[in-house]
Amino acid sequence: MLSDRLRPLLTGTELPAAKIVRAMSAAGATTAADLNKATGLARSTISQALAELRDGDLIVEIETRSTGMGRPTMLFTLNPQAGRCAGVLLGLDEIRIAVCDTAHAVLSDRSIPIARDYTPADACAVIAAELSSDCRRLGFEVGELLGVGLAVSAPISPAGVVLAGSILPTWDGVDLASVFGSNLHCPVHADNESNCGALAEMTWGAAIGEPDFVLIKFDLGIGGAIVVNGGVQRGFNGSAAEFGHLTLDPRGALCRCGNRGCLETMAGATQLLKLARDTTGHDVSLDSFICEAIEGHVGYRRLIEDAAAIGGWCLGLIGTALNPPLFVIAGGLARTNELFLDRLVQSYERHTLCKSALLPEGQRARFAVGRFLANDTVLGAVALVLHQQSRIA
Amino acid sequence: MLSDRLRPLLTGTELPAAKIVRAMSAAGATTAADLNKATGLARSTISQALAELRDGDLIVEIETRSTGMGRPTMLFTLNPQAGRCAGVLLGLDEIRIAVCDTAHAVLSDRSIPIARDYTPADACAVIAAELSSDCRRLGFEVGELLGVGLAVSAPISPAGVVLAGSILPTWDGVDLASVFGSNLHCPVHADNESNCGALAEMTWGAAIGEPDFVLIKFDLGIGGAIVVNGGVQRGFNGSAAEFGHLTLDPRGALCRCGNRGCLETMAGATQLLKLARDTTGHDVSLDSFICEAIEGHVGYRRLIEDAAAIGGWCLGLIGTALNPPLFVIAGGLARTNELFLDRLVQSYERHTLCKSALLPEGQRARFAVGRFLANDTVLGAVALVLHQQSRIA
Repeated sequence: MLSDRLRPLLTGTELPAAKIVRAMSAAGATTAADLNKATGLARSTISQALAELRDGDLIVEIETRSTGMGRPTMLFTLNPQAGRCAGVLLGLDEIRIAVCDTAHAVLSDRSIPIARDYTPADACAVIAAELSSDCRRLGFEVGELLGVGLAVSAPISPAGVVLAGSILPTWDGVDLASVFGSNLHCPVHADNESNCGALAEMTWGAAIGEPDFVLIKFDLGIGGAIVVNGGVQRGFNGSAAEFGHLTLDPRGALCRCGNRGCLETMAGATQLLKLARDTTGHDVSLDSFICEAIEGHVGYRRLIEDAAAIGGWCLGLIGTALNPPLFVIAGGLARTNELFLDRLVQSYERHTLCKSALLPEGQRARFAVGRFLANDTVLGAVALVLHQQSRIA
Repeated sequence: MLSDRLRPLLTGTELPAAKIVRAMSAAGATTAADLNKATGLARSTISQALAELRDGDLIVEIETRSTGMGRPTMLFTLNPQAGRCAGVLLGLDEIRIAVCDTAHAVLSDRSIPIARDYTPADACAVIAAELSSDCRRLGFEVGELLGVGLAVSAPISPAGVVLAGSILPTWDGVDLASVFGSNLHCPVHADNESNCGALAEMTWGAAIGEPDFVLIKFDLGIGGAIVVNGGVQRGFNGSAAEFGHLTLDPRGALCRCGNRGCLETMAGATQLLKLARDTTGHDVSLDSFICEAIEGHVGYRRLIEDAAAIGGWCLGLIGTALNPPLFVIAGGLARTNELFLDRLVQSYERHTLCKSALLPEGQRARFAVGRFLANDTVLGAVALVLHQQSRIA
């Protein structure tokens, strides 16, 4: 089976072919020149290894791009038949499962409702059954998967333990490896959902080819990711980039994390929906809230603008501390585009140390809305396997 | 001349000997095992290259350490005769010059007074003359130096241009390469003074062997450095880790950077000295302020404790964003030890996301007072050359 030959190259050796396979798995379709940059291998070594991989059916030439003058550029990708990866989002009341091939095509992506406060064992049973059925529908067995990535709404320790602060409170302290390790019959990777979102944007979205950026996700909660030199920074115990818990007012509202005045207590959509309900007297979903704001609801627009002003203050802090070249703005509030983004950037400029107006054009931080505002997390869980990151079992 | 043979290995090729020389230059005395970790070269390759370097007098065995059982461990260092490096601090009213050898011994370190608001040309003339005289006194010519490092109290762009926010306002926008490049007759390196401080702590001080840490310097101003995987993070335009300019209160006092309510306006020693003078009616130097606080001056102690509480809030923000394993606390206020540090750590724990009390012992952030509270900056300027970082000319 092709996947049996691909697997050891993805996970193992320092052979040139293995380095090339891992670079392609992370980057998707790529040129020999890009492989040279990514692996540091000599051109001649790359040519030879590509020829061997092509002869073994592990890679394919998918396209020739004409660059105007001179010879057209060859693009190489892993053979889509050679391996598939799955991603799973452990949501509040849904489990979402996506399957991709190693050429980065999404083969399936669907959501399965599950009762709130589900246990790890419940989740594992649902995932094992549904993933098997997805794989069979796609014409292969679950055991052929190169791996399953799990996206969790909590900081995850390097060993795969869920740390405090999860949106799934019953999961605090759960050892993901012992729950999922033996039941999914393939390697398991796991990471915080915002880190997964950053991987998705690196692989398919707003941060392709960007080795350094910061992602911040404004949704019901607020999370983030820091990417340095192509790698997601997880920090000492896995809790880096928890921007939603930056303390802006030490005497502010009590946050679910136990601190006071966190960004999330002021600009998280949960708080905006609460403020809306306090005045209107009826509940509104995040989707409706956003749609009505886009259509012109004055009060909802005001709540989003004020959240953007506070969010921009926080981006200003992050800019002063990290000075990244790119901010990717993700999450539901980003779906309102200019309404949220303009005020956010304006407030960033007000509060950060280096003002764009005083910098040469090439040195100004850029802002991009994430490409995947609805499914970045589950795609990022797939990308954990493609990038061979955060393996726990 | 030995230095003529060392120079190309320090700056150039990917030969094993060159990789070893660069690792030794950064790390000082080191074992073959450490070289294996630092360079990734095979043990046999390292042994062979070490033998060649020793035969060529470029390295020496300086010591054998007994590790109790088994064979003693050999320590290798670059031959101190093979090269010297200089570091220069461009201070407010002094220019400080230090000279070290490649074995990391400090050969001279002295301060030359200079009138405030000196120009780049003034500084260059003083440095060229004084450095020549230091080198001659030490028995060699200035042209034999492997390089000169410059530490500047401002963010520096990767191309060596002084960005806004310098304590030397007349230096804004100065291109350091064009001022110093041709006049010092050797390679020139330049970086922000806090980044230099972090290099000094990595090379000789509180962060030896720590690939990841955050340094924060509480002095007349407040600066910092972020070190990831052994490298100082400079950010997109060179302004990363400017922790003194984290905006804590958007309606607070106007800061010299043009923003309001920066950490520095609340906890910088300049502000503490101003508050002291407002009440006592007389000026006090930072040195006297610190000494009197240590001796028990109630008001001065209170100002330092309150600065520590606000500084700890900022460390909490940094902890939530970066989750580093180690904070190195530098600068004059750190000389008060527990007085400042206890309150700082207490406030950090209060405001950061992951509380030490809830983490296993090995996952708690550590705090260390910097080793060089008086001369970290000038030693760090030397270390720019030893680590071959931030070369501008």
